[in-house]
Amino acid sequence: MAQNSSITPIRVRPHVVVVGGGFGGLAVVRKLAKADVDITLIDRHNYNTFQPLLYQVATASLNPGDITWFLRAIRSKQDNVRFLKGTVVDINHEAHSILLDGDITVGFDYLVLANGVTANFFGVPGAEEYSMPLYRRSQALALRDRMFAALEDAAINGQNDNFRLVVVGAGATGVETAGALAEMRNLDMPTTYPELDPTKVHITLVEMGQHVLAPFHPNLREYAKRQLEKRGVDLRLGTVVKEVTPDGVLLEKD
Amino acid sequence: MAQNSSITPIRVRPHVVVVGGGFGGLAVVRKLAKADVDITLIDRHNYNTFQPLLYQVATASLNPGDITWFLRAIRSKQDNVRFLKGTVVDINHEAHSILLDGDITVGFDYLVLANGVTANFFGVPGAEEYSMPLYRRSQALALRDRMFAALEDAAINGQNDNFRLVVVGAGATGVETAGALAEMRNLDMPTTYPELDPTKVHITLVEMGQHVLAPFHPNLREYAKRQLEKRGVDLRLGTVVKEVTPDGVLLEKD
Repeated sequence: MAQNSSITPIRVRPHVVVVGGGFGGLAVVRKLAKADVDITLIDRHNYNTFQPLLYQVATASLNPGDITWFLRAIRSKQDNVRFLKGTVVDINHEAHSILLDGDITVGFDYLVLANGVTANFFGVPGAEEYSMPLYRRSQALALRDRMFAALEDAAINGQNDNFRLVVVGAGATGVETAGALAEMRNLDMPTTYPELDPTKVHITLVEMGQHVLAPFHPNLREYAKRQLEKRGVDLRLGTVVKEVTPDGVLLEKD
Repeated sequence: MAQNSSITPIRVRPHVVVVGGGFGGLAVVRKLAKADVDITLIDRHNYNTFQPLLYQVATASLNPGDITWFLRAIRSKQDNVRFLKGTVVDINHEAHSILLDGDITVGFDYLVLANGVTANFFGVPGAEEYSMPLYRRSQALALRDRMFAALEDAAINGQNDNFRLVVVGAGATGVETAGALAEMRNLDMPTTYPELDPTKVHITLVEMGQHVLAPFHPNLREYAKRQLEKRGVDLRLGTVVKEVTPDGVLLEKD
């Protein structure tokens, strides 16, 4: 790796640096397609993740590559952008430059920070240590692998215990995840894991508020709720997670 | 994990154990679909790999999940088979049983060993240590990741060196791999890695024999050879690899 190298080609047009190749960063890049600027898009990964379908990777109905695409391919549609893979470690406001890991300095005229969000554990004790967040491709794969490793182990060594999957948060991802897990149990497992007893697999969806899919129209909320119940999801509305332990969650009714 | 557990349900029909969920093992399982037997299919992975397309995973034109499928899904077409994930560590011929890792014993009336093949290094010094074989999904991913990590590094830190990719063996996989790499360099890199100079990326295909695709009709061999040359693959026929070192291969002309 070069030390203290500086990547700021001599330019006559304004240089826009966009940090983050997610929905936000890409929207900016695309809007500037016809603008008289040079853009540098920076992300720590060389792929974009379509987060709304992460739950399908986690439940093994899509491959990770089906919901991600190569960020460098953006140049096939737009030639005023270049891509840099790196992690921003510092911003120098006076010098108008950012510092990437590996001591790479990138100068900018305009800087757009769209470096995304991550799971919010709301200070619940144990949540960060013992739950599996679902915001990144690697997290979806970790969840999928852990689930199937447990099923394979039970298929070989006998299913002594109940499997309990607890999904916290009944927003879109929580509802989709709980529903997909229930369909996997009801429809797939009798074929794929005939050694296991689906009635010993329990899927619980915990939500602090009174509704699933709170931002949606009441009719849609009710429909989603009925569909989850029809699939046998154990729905706990108005229920707060007090603590997450290595082998369970402590709930408190509102 | 259960210790010394034995998985041999009481059966009245002959029990056929098939080790290996590749082309060979699956052909046996399917042929026995209507037979009056119970089959146990055992593989160390719970997926089947379509090996002829491994080169496309290695060169990033297919996702690993596009060339693999969940072996447990075989029960959706055939109900006299069950699947066990495990690695065979011993065979007890007298007792008619095999031992899997984790001390699992599986009895059989008939045993089919179809546990596959692996890369043959032909005793070439250094080949096993320093080359990357292409026989398994994990190996294709390792090759892909190493290649793209090198490209990303050069894109950030500057391309001081030539990239040299040497493919050994001009059978179907070698020819496909070299051709796909050349197309990646010629067609994709100018868009995806504009920072890099494609003329500094060299793809060499080394073959001991006098022909590419030796088992095929001479017309087809010639066609494949011309196509590789057209794509700028540096073809070395009648050339033996004497040694593989950490940073190169030592060749000897026949």
